[in-house]
Amino acid sequence: MASAATHQAPKGTRDFYPEEMAVRRHIESAWRHASIVHGFDEIDGPTFEHLSLYTVKSGDGIVNELFSFRRAGGEDDYALRPEFTPTLARMVAARAGGLSMPVKWFAIPSHFRAERPQRGRLREFIQWNVDMVGLLGAQADVDVLSTAILALERLGLGPSDVRVRLSHRGAVGAGLRALGAAAESLAEAFTLLDRRDKMDPKEFDTRARAIGLPAEAIDRFAALAKTTLPIDSDASEIAKALGCDETDAEPLADIARRLREAGLGAWCEIDLGIVRGLAYYTGTVFEIHEASGAERAIAGGGRYDRLVELFGGPSLPAVGFGMGDVVLGLVLKDRGKLPTESERSLLPRTDAFLISAGPEKADALVARLAFDLRRLGLHVRHSYKATHNVGKLLSEAGKCRARFAVIIGTELESAMVAVKDLDAGSQRLVPLAEVADAVRVAS
Amino acid sequence: MASAATHQAPKGTRDFYPEEMAVRRHIESAWRHASIVHGFDEIDGPTFEHLSLYTVKSGDGIVNELFSFRRAGGEDDYALRPEFTPTLARMVAARAGGLSMPVKWFAIPSHFRAERPQRGRLREFIQWNVDMVGLLGAQADVDVLSTAILALERLGLGPSDVRVRLSHRGAVGAGLRALGAAAESLAEAFTLLDRRDKMDPKEFDTRARAIGLPAEAIDRFAALAKTTLPIDSDASEIAKALGCDETDAEPLADIARRLREAGLGAWCEIDLGIVRGLAYYTGTVFEIHEASGAERAIAGGGRYDRLVELFGGPSLPAVGFGMGDVVLGLVLKDRGKLPTESERSLLPRTDAFLISAGPEKADALVARLAFDLRRLGLHVRHSYKATHNVGKLLSEAGKCRARFAVIIGTELESAMVAVKDLDAGSQRLVPLAEVADAVRVAS
Repeated sequence: MASAATHQAPKGTRDFYPEEMAVRRHIESAWRHASIVHGFDEIDGPTFEHLSLYTVKSGDGIVNELFSFRRAGGEDDYALRPEFTPTLARMVAARAGGLSMPVKWFAIPSHFRAERPQRGRLREFIQWNVDMVGLLGAQADVDVLSTAILALERLGLGPSDVRVRLSHRGAVGAGLRALGAAAESLAEAFTLLDRRDKMDPKEFDTRARAIGLPAEAIDRFAALAKTTLPIDSDASEIAKALGCDETDAEPLADIARRLREAGLGAWCEIDLGIVRGLAYYTGTVFEIHEASGAERAIAGGGRYDRLVELFGGPSLPAVGFGMGDVVLGLVLKDRGKLPTESERSLLPRTDAFLISAGPEKADALVARLAFDLRRLGLHVRHSYKATHNVGKLLSEAGKCRARFAVIIGTELESAMVAVKDLDAGSQRLVPLAEVADAVRVAS
Repeated sequence: MASAATHQAPKGTRDFYPEEMAVRRHIESAWRHASIVHGFDEIDGPTFEHLSLYTVKSGDGIVNELFSFRRAGGEDDYALRPEFTPTLARMVAARAGGLSMPVKWFAIPSHFRAERPQRGRLREFIQWNVDMVGLLGAQADVDVLSTAILALERLGLGPSDVRVRLSHRGAVGAGLRALGAAAESLAEAFTLLDRRDKMDPKEFDTRARAIGLPAEAIDRFAALAKTTLPIDSDASEIAKALGCDETDAEPLADIARRLREAGLGAWCEIDLGIVRGLAYYTGTVFEIHEASGAERAIAGGGRYDRLVELFGGPSLPAVGFGMGDVVLGLVLKDRGKLPTESERSLLPRTDAFLISAGPEKADALVARLAFDLRRLGLHVRHSYKATHNVGKLLSEAGKCRARFAVIIGTELESAMVAVKDLDAGSQRLVPLAEVADAVRVAS
């Protein structure tokens, strides 16, 4: 038998004890709520997929970042889901003919990456995915962004806590072309833009020249990566910053205008340095960051109009984002948006704590009343201690944050019980048949 | 690139499109509700664990039933979680000193078994786990059973749909001893009892003799496996059926009495043939079945007082059960307890469908009003079609089951909008600032 010490959660995974689970549910319910009020329907897929689903899009290079396996005696290679988009694309492709467009789906599953665990990055994490498929244009992009923002607002964050940083591959591509980048080198140009901070300046220089940028353009390329513009910029201002035609800046300006119209302008800014690493984005791209730039991105997404096609479906435009629980949890904690004293206050409160004051008949009555009240939807607890000491039992009721204590046994001959309001400190006698109403008023 | 046909969910796993997801959430929220009102706190653990966590309890024989894997370049063997109990025992053992007893936890995670998929049995399934640790005796057993029953009741099932079948290893063990089984062969006797229906009668006979049962006892052993008793049986009646002392029948009689006292008697019966396959149960055992015996067990559980110790923790009594979503889903369907016409009726209803009746200003107002109403918690949709045809848009509102349509644009000069109650068919003009109140009344 293995020793106790070997029985730990695998590296990079988490045990969710009640307090941590309450935080997770707090985050998940903000995600779910924001999705539903925006008209997205919840879906889910398998926790593992055929390995080939992931190599299609990302090539074999991704295999080392995956947990992959094969069933004993089986022939198929599987991998734990590293992201949800391939599953989504597969599900849309499988039913594309029968789905009414636009498809608006969200999911809140676990994801897995075989990376070295570090701050903000674990091997298993929960990620909220919101996607709209089948609709071109800025309206869809804004609906998706609005969903992300509402969830953050419900978690207590505001425009001074988090920033939505927005860009557009079409506009930035036009800017890069204007700087001298060859049309066929745009993908490499985006990669350079994305990795500029992690890259040796010399390597950056060499690779920038290789895509056709003349020496005098390289500084401007680097400067472009650091350019932010206010969300009330119009197409001519964006075009000016990019050195491109106003037509190419139009789509980004359109999204900015719609964000302002929807009342979301305060949360957003244009950041021409945002490109997103993955090659499959085709238009709008965005990230959500803690305002001071601390921590990794809270969320990232954009438009990927060729993705469903890649998975064997029809050509369908799509836009979406992913938001993980790990970085968001750190930001909520950093910003004081989680109950500081004890995360237990996120746990559901007990409506009624039942106390048997003595006779055996009262014990049986507690069992019966407990189920009757629970059946009515009330959250009921009672002690498991072999005591009828009402003072001790009242203190246990207080510890589990009960709203009411119901004391049974002192007035049983008259079928009355004492209902004590533990918040107000008041107490009154109530007929046994009316306990549910008495403890429900304040719930 | 792989062809479209290879992009399917792995065998034995499921895609949850919105309708299927709504059924899953319907089941999960009944589970969660029943747990919370009974005072259980939600927890979760990693989706995969060290492989050794599973071989400790079940031996190496279990490895073929697991999906196991290793990170590329890593040294640790992992396995997808086949059941939650080892994770629970590990989590209790890790913090045993700091937890206040009894620990009352529930979890609703995914589980994985590398078996051949068949009706009621998939390779990935959701399972509700409810456990109470640190408390001996019938009260804990009954609290756990009561939690299971309340969830079934909330899903629309009643005592004529499902039966709780209850037994006790102590009582049945005493009965087996009385028949002549050797004390050291009780584990094998339980295995025989559990597998009797899947076993060749000759093999059953041979193995029954091997544990010391005389020829004349074997028929009585087989008969015992088929013995059911009403839940209002007392210790002497149970002892008589088992041929054991009344003292040995006491614990089972005590649970039966408490179930009756709590008002749960109608759901339950004593079934001496229930033993549960796993070796770790030590007292009470139970299964919940569809009343006619169709389908596999909906749930199974019992008392396992040595489990935490096995995982390196202190010696702590424990009782719990697991209920999967697959068999339960089949039973709900068979029994007509899911909306028959369309599972879409389980999806959340739209509160307000916003319609722009024309001017460009109205389009912008729809975007703004949509976010304002969503921020107030209302579920809002609008069309993505480029039309201002109010008739067509009203029909779209009907399709997404909206309660109200809000028509913007016809009376904009006076800052009024038309609010149409789609259930009642009535319509009235409302000041723009009061739309939220107008659509909230009926929500």
